Amino acid sequence: MKLTTNQIFDFNKHEDDSYESEIDYLNNKFSKKGISVDEIIKKLGSFNVAIPSWALGAGGTRFGRFSYGGEPSSLEQKLDDIGILNSLTKTAGAVSLHIPWDIPSDVNAIKEKAESHRILFDAMNSNTFQDQPHLEHTYKFGSLNSVHKNAREQAVEHNKEVIRIGKELGSKSLTVWLADGANFPGQLNFQTALQNTEDSLKKIYSDLPEDWRMFIEYKPYEPNFYSTTIQDWGTSFMLANACGEKAMTLVDLGHHLPNTNIEQIVATLMLKGKLGGFHFNDSKYGDDDLTVGSIKPYSLFLIFNELVYGMENNSQNPDLAWMIDASHNTKDPLEDLIQSLEAILIAYAQALLVDRKALYEAQQESDVVKCQELLQDAYRTDVRSLLKAARKETNAAINPLEAYRSFKVRKQLIEERGTSSRASGL
Amino acid sequence: MKLTTNQIFDFNKHEDDSYESEIDYLNNKFSKKGISVDEIIKKLGSFNVAIPSWALGAGGTRFGRFSYGGEPSSLEQKLDDIGILNSLTKTAGAVSLHIPWDIPSDVNAIKEKAESHRILFDAMNSNTFQDQPHLEHTYKFGSLNSVHKNAREQAVEHNKEVIRIGKELGSKSLTVWLADGANFPGQLNFQTALQNTEDSLKKIYSDLPEDWRMFIEYKPYEPNFYSTTIQDWGTSFMLANACGEKAMTLVDLGHHLPNTNIEQIVATLMLKGKLGGFHFNDSKYGDDDLTVGSIKPYSLFLIFNELVYGMENNSQNPDLAWMIDASHNTKDPLEDLIQSLEAILIAYAQALLVDRKALYEAQQESDVVKCQELLQDAYRTDVRSLLKAARKETNAAINPLEAYRSFKVRKQLIEERGTSSRASGL
Amino acid sequence: MKLTTNQIFDFNKHEDDSYESEIDYLNNKFSKKGISVDEIIKKLGSFNVAIPSWALGAGGTRFGRFSYGGEPSSLEQKLDDIGILNSLTKTAGAVSLHIPWDIPSDVNAIKEKAESHRILFDAMNSNTFQDQPHLEHTYKFGSLNSVHKNAREQAVEHNKEVIRIGKELGSKSLTVWLADGANFPGQLNFQTALQNTEDSLKKIYSDLPEDWRMFIEYKPYEPNFYSTTIQDWGTSFMLANACGEKAMTLVDLGHHLPNTNIEQIVATLMLKGKLGGFHFNDSKYGDDDLTVGSIKPYSLFLIFNELVYGMENNSQNPDLAWMIDASHNTKDPLEDLIQSLEAILIAYAQALLVDRKALYEAQQESDVVKCQELLQDAYRTDVRSLLKAARKETNAAINPLEAYRSFKVRKQLIEERGTSSRASGL
Amino acid sequence: MKLTTNQIFDFNKHEDDSYESEIDYLNNKFSKKGISVDEIIKKLGSFNVAIPSWALGAGGTRFGRFSYGGEPSSLEQKLDDIGILNSLTKTAGAVSLHIPWDIPSDVNAIKEKAESHRILFDAMNSNTFQDQPHLEHTYKFGSLNSVHKNAREQAVEHNKEVIRIGKELGSKSLTVWLADGANFPGQLNFQTALQNTEDSLKKIYSDLPEDWRMFIEYKPYEPNFYSTTIQDWGTSFMLANACGEKAMTLVDLGHHLPNTNIEQIVATLMLKGKLGGFHFNDSKYGDDDLTVGSIKPYSLFLIFNELVYGMENNSQNPDLAWMIDASHNTKDPLEDLIQSLEAILIAYAQALLVDRKALYEAQQESDVVKCQELLQDAYRTDVRSLLKAARKETNAAINPLEAYRSFKVRKQLIEERGTSSRASGL
Repeated sequence: MKLTTNQIFDFNKHEDDSYESEIDYLNNKFSKKGISVDEIIKKLGSFNVAIPSWALGAGGTRFGRFSYGGEPSSLEQKLDDIGILNSLTKTAGAVSLHIPWDIPSDVNAIKEKAESHRILFDAMNSNTFQDQPHLEHTYKFGSLNSVHKNAREQAVEHNKEVIRIGKELGSKSLTVWLADGANFPGQLNFQTALQNTEDSLKKIYSDLPEDWRMFIEYKPYEPNFYSTTIQDWGTSFMLANACGEKAMTLVDLGHHLPNTNIEQIVATLMLKGKLGGFHFNDSKYGDDDLTVGSIKPYSLFLIFNELVYGMENNSQNPDLAWMIDASHNTKDPLEDLIQSLEAILIAYAQALLVDRKALYEAQQESDVVKCQELLQDAYRTDVRSLLKAARKETNAAINPLEAYRSFKVRKQLIEERGTSSRASGL
Repeated sequence: MKLTTNQIFDFNKHEDDSYESEIDYLNNKFSKKGISVDEIIKKLGSFNVAIPSWALGAGGTRFGRFSYGGEPSSLEQKLDDIGILNSLTKTAGAVSLHIPWDIPSDVNAIKEKAESHRILFDAMNSNTFQDQPHLEHTYKFGSLNSVHKNAREQAVEHNKEVIRIGKELGSKSLTVWLADGANFPGQLNFQTALQNTEDSLKKIYSDLPEDWRMFIEYKPYEPNFYSTTIQDWGTSFMLANACGEKAMTLVDLGHHLPNTNIEQIVATLMLKGKLGGFHFNDSKYGDDDLTVGSIKPYSLFLIFNELVYGMENNSQNPDLAWMIDASHNTKDPLEDLIQSLEAILIAYAQALLVDRKALYEAQQESDVVKCQELLQDAYRTDVRSLLKAARKETNAAINPLEAYRSFKVRKQLIEERGTSSRASGL
Repeated sequence: MKLTTNQIFDFNKHEDDSYESEIDYLNNKFSKKGISVDEIIKKLGSFNVAIPSWALGAGGTRFGRFSYGGEPSSLEQKLDDIGILNSLTKTAGAVSLHIPWDIPSDVNAIKEKAESHRILFDAMNSNTFQDQPHLEHTYKFGSLNSVHKNAREQAVEHNKEVIRIGKELGSKSLTVWLADGANFPGQLNFQTALQNTEDSLKKIYSDLPEDWRMFIEYKPYEPNFYSTTIQDWGTSFMLANACGEKAMTLVDLGHHLPNTNIEQIVATLMLKGKLGGFHFNDSKYGDDDLTVGSIKPYSLFLIFNELVYGMENNSQNPDLAWMIDASHNTKDPLEDLIQSLEAILIAYAQALLVDRKALYEAQQESDVVKCQELLQDAYRTDVRSLLKAARKETNAAINPLEAYRSFKVRKQLIEERGTSSRASGL
Repeated sequence: MKLTTNQIFDFNKHEDDSYESEIDYLNNKFSKKGISVDEIIKKLGSFNVAIPSWALGAGGTRFGRFSYGGEPSSLEQKLDDIGILNSLTKTAGAVSLHIPWDIPSDVNAIKEKAESHRILFDAMNSNTFQDQPHLEHTYKFGSLNSVHKNAREQAVEHNKEVIRIGKELGSKSLTVWLADGANFPGQLNFQTALQNTEDSLKKIYSDLPEDWRMFIEYKPYEPNFYSTTIQDWGTSFMLANACGEKAMTLVDLGHHLPNTNIEQIVATLMLKGKLGGFHFNDSKYGDDDLTVGSIKPYSLFLIFNELVYGMENNSQNPDLAWMIDASHNTKDPLEDLIQSLEAILIAYAQALLVDRKALYEAQQESDVVKCQELLQDAYRTDVRSLLKAARKETNAAINPLEAYRSFKVRKQLIEERGTSSRASGL
């Protein structure tokens, strides 16, 4: 199914427009500080976040999975789902594919399908954390870090194949997430594992097209519960430096130990020109992969505060690849993603409202109270009217979630696809 | 020094009144849901939080302390500071004393001083975690839990004395926080320590006047780093039940292990009628005692969401004792407290805006997406205009922090007290 | 397959017996302190730990699963596997079944099979965290805590059925582990969820035979990532008290927030006569379900130190139900279990070596250094010779892991069952 | 006071020598694996750990401090205390000074005093986390990272002075620990703070003598509770690389977020030739600074396992600076240090017992069970007899703690120094 521009337009006609008075209020308040609400609305309208192909079906835990009706069971259907999201929000104009789950059988057909939804192909994701039926060598004991040369080479070759597929589709980047690690002390020689990882990454890097980038993820634990070879940003950063200019660190919000100051990591990486991409989600305990902004919205704001600062001041750091990486165990995946996109834009808008000139001055004076006031003045502002304005201008639904429900999208998807379809993947 | 009503009134006259249009906007939006903004403003105006006497000076860590000019060096001066806070906010109308730091030499004079600032005497705090010069038995190895009968009895007697002093001043409750625990495995017999604690608490409880309550704090660690005898709410709850109806659990936001779901503890205690009081602060790592709302404002809102629910539905739970328990290592303590009071009122106002009828229905339907929308609709609302209205009505300063700075309060305090005065205590 | 007593006997004949000199050394050292090494050997020989039926196949994570050859695919085969474990160790003489995974089609045949391996039926485990094909009501939004009466009643009925099956088999206890909770703030009304859970548990309890016990587990998170209705020991303890004398708390080592002092919880529960059972495993980050003793062996010792103390001093607390609850993602499950049993016995032996009289005296004198020395003197002792002696006396293999490998058990299981069999369950 | 060689010799004569039979047992067991117990004894005998001058008095927390009789109140007395430790253990042959607490008034006298105790001057520690009476600029808002040029320069100059003092004494390294960070979001511009820190460190580095090294510590939090500029090993490593070859990372065991895999950090740094030094202590919650090995002895072993591997295989990494950095809130500081030294040697001995050839082979075969067996075989070995042998050979006390008590050292120190002396510092 597909939502048409007319449908959205009609929906918007009947929406409450009282938010416009709020924009006047904000405009009045912030223009005094030299902050243009109109420019913020423009920036919100042009912000885009990639949707990973695996996020469109029900997620699960090791204790089971509760499925959802109307799940997409093919790459085409996944693109359709993203098309719906993009029609509703105009913020979801890219897909991030996962190989081997999303190998296109007909590349041109897939490209046309994506084109029809105005969806770009963002970073390609490789998978060397699961065994596949046709593979000769197991990844049970590692992939790029493996003591087994055959497993390493198979994993390197897989990544090269992912690059090949990505080139055909028009992607410009490869994301490498490695589960490689150990469940028990002694299982791995840390030094060998790290050295093998570096060597393998360099081999993949050597196949990277000139205009591509390679993103190296880090994560402290899960699915391995004693050690992970790329356990933190420091390791990823070291490996990216060893590979070369096109290799960069990717930050996934859920991939940190309890209480990590993530915004400081973001600032450090941007200062060094090595922040490549960002995976959004939220969590309370571990890599919970919950809806963005559902647990710690202030942290999200503080991170965007650094991202906005970096985008304005760090020309050494290239444009970032944004992606949502959440798991939908409880909610309708599309509703979950709509809520995530909303939370991302809210944090972005609030970060854009920070009076940076005044903040700079307060920092120079070590006026800590004032610094906090300045950040919280932006954060406490209700920016939802700005999002609505941005959506209206881009012909998205002013209230995407309400529109989704009023169009009875899920009902239609179930009619089309049935209740037992299943998104490939985890 | 003292701020007069006229000073505040004059200050308010010159303040921007554009917030009033915001109230109209909120009124319009929320009245449709049956939520009265006027009632919320009234509730905000009558909310009061006790200020602990030890929070008026600079705090510190084991690595040192950076002092602040104009610190109060007597109980009278502490009351003056709270008087200033109360004039500015009308939300700080109570003091929580700490014995032996705040033993009044002249009870009547102190009562008059408090009266003059319209300050009530909230919970009394005992101290059995430090040795005092005149004490015969050390608390180095515990107090109420001690294997040493003499130390236990001395600690029980101290708590009884605190009750006596509190009775003279008009307080109605005793807060017992115990550092008792062990730095090393084996140091304590857990069972004996718990039994001794229970016995000692019962002895104190037996001296509690009929109209008093006894609050039992819990904390997992610090200053002991292996075990704390009252390590969690479960232990406090068990001890409170053993003592009797007037004994209750007190929740300090910073006294939890990483990632604890505190709002669930609040809900459980209120359901059981055993939540006695609340110590506000914020933290990222441990018991950091930072400004309320400075790190995790959404958590604070979720906690207030349960508190408001409980206050509306749990008649079995008595009125709560509210207190700020923060440590001011960096900021001017009075500015820090003003920011904390602001954050508390914001969270309270947001929690009052939750559409509880709709939430109940969404919960009945397991509409998880809607449940989140309902909470976040309240949280994302900018409620600062409501706080301003409440302050205006109570003759507090519309912008307390600005007022504090414009009145040059700190400068005057330094002139009065000098730069090397020091608040007694830690 | 089955290992015969003769096989074990022959194996032992060829084992190195130099450990016997170690026993003399220990005997000499500890008899001076009034500690009898012989008695410890006897206690080790009679210690038994239940093996859960689901632990005999490969585990997995949400990121996938690496299977193992020769996995048992029926309840009979699971009992055979435990039979092998028990022949090798004489410490695994009980099984803990999980319904519906292990519903016996022929109760008598299963009882005979168990009898033939000298395996008892320990606690029965219910499952209301997964939907089953035949079930009418989903547990997606909770079971015993559900807002949906139908789901609650279905879950209560399931537990009653588990009791019925258990009665036929000769089990004497029911373990209730609830995944019930929420992934998002607002999803659940905490108070209603807790009240529903209490009511449901009471209904199950009302069906409990006189000589049974009901164990209530707690867990802070996973599979729900915002809240779990029975989040900690305090909640479990409160619910057990509400149900009655036969209801008790069960501690699973992996079910705690970071840094929790578990041994103190154990001591508290035993003092109150409410510790019902114990699930052993180890972990570094969350509920990692790793081999017992593989990550934090000193913590395990400290817990056993409390268990031994409680078993000797707390007649108010009944005998404990011991079980291993680990997940075998990397290792051969049987080897993993052998290592776990070894670690449990080592910790138990070390705890039995603690000079409790001297410890009591050192605690009375607050001689913290001595207290630590006494615990560590026991812990630093190499007790493996005692385990060997205990095994020799009970006709278990002196070195169970070596025996397992020398008998080529896994090879035979693969020959019997193939490489693609799969243990039912998660 | 001073312990003489004769005193120790006499003490040893009366000690139980049954440990010698244990050595035979170990020798017999391990020689088969090609591991020489004699060599291990030699390595234990020559291992030396520096004692920081500030560890000889009672520590404390922000909640207070319980003092200890006979604390050293001058640098001379601190050296005497270390002399006692060194006589007893022959493992404490170095001191690590802290400036300004330990500025020697008479350099030659101090050098002679140290010489007389056979104590070397290990790393010098600078202090820019506290204000000193004579300093013009406060460190309240940072030192090397400060926005205030004057504070930065003052801090750089202080570090240069520490180098000057160290040169006179014969030290060869400078340890820089920075408390620099922020208590609140917004307080610091992360990028500026990091850049300032790098620039300041380079200025200090430019003054470093050719044969010196500079150690850069990292720490996630405390005394700042929102962010610390050098928050993790990755930041320290980046800064050390920016400074040059003589700059290296220093690992303090307590300076990590919960659950950090520290041994992997150690391995990574040694592989890259950048591990400069090590601060030993133990902790359960944060930077608790407890006695080494008192909480997580297996972690300590796993770290030593990497250290031993690195010392044998990483010629790119220079010799390490070892130091104990604990705080003695409860125990007699000297007894605490004796227990720490014991725990360090035990972990070292166990790591030396690891059968590395077999481990290598098991890792090549991904025999995870065997890998664990090999590590735990070493760890479960009671190595205390080896420590005794090493001590006997070096004329240390076979049982240092017993010797300390039998010589009534503390009693004599109190007689000499009184009960109210206080070690300078925190």
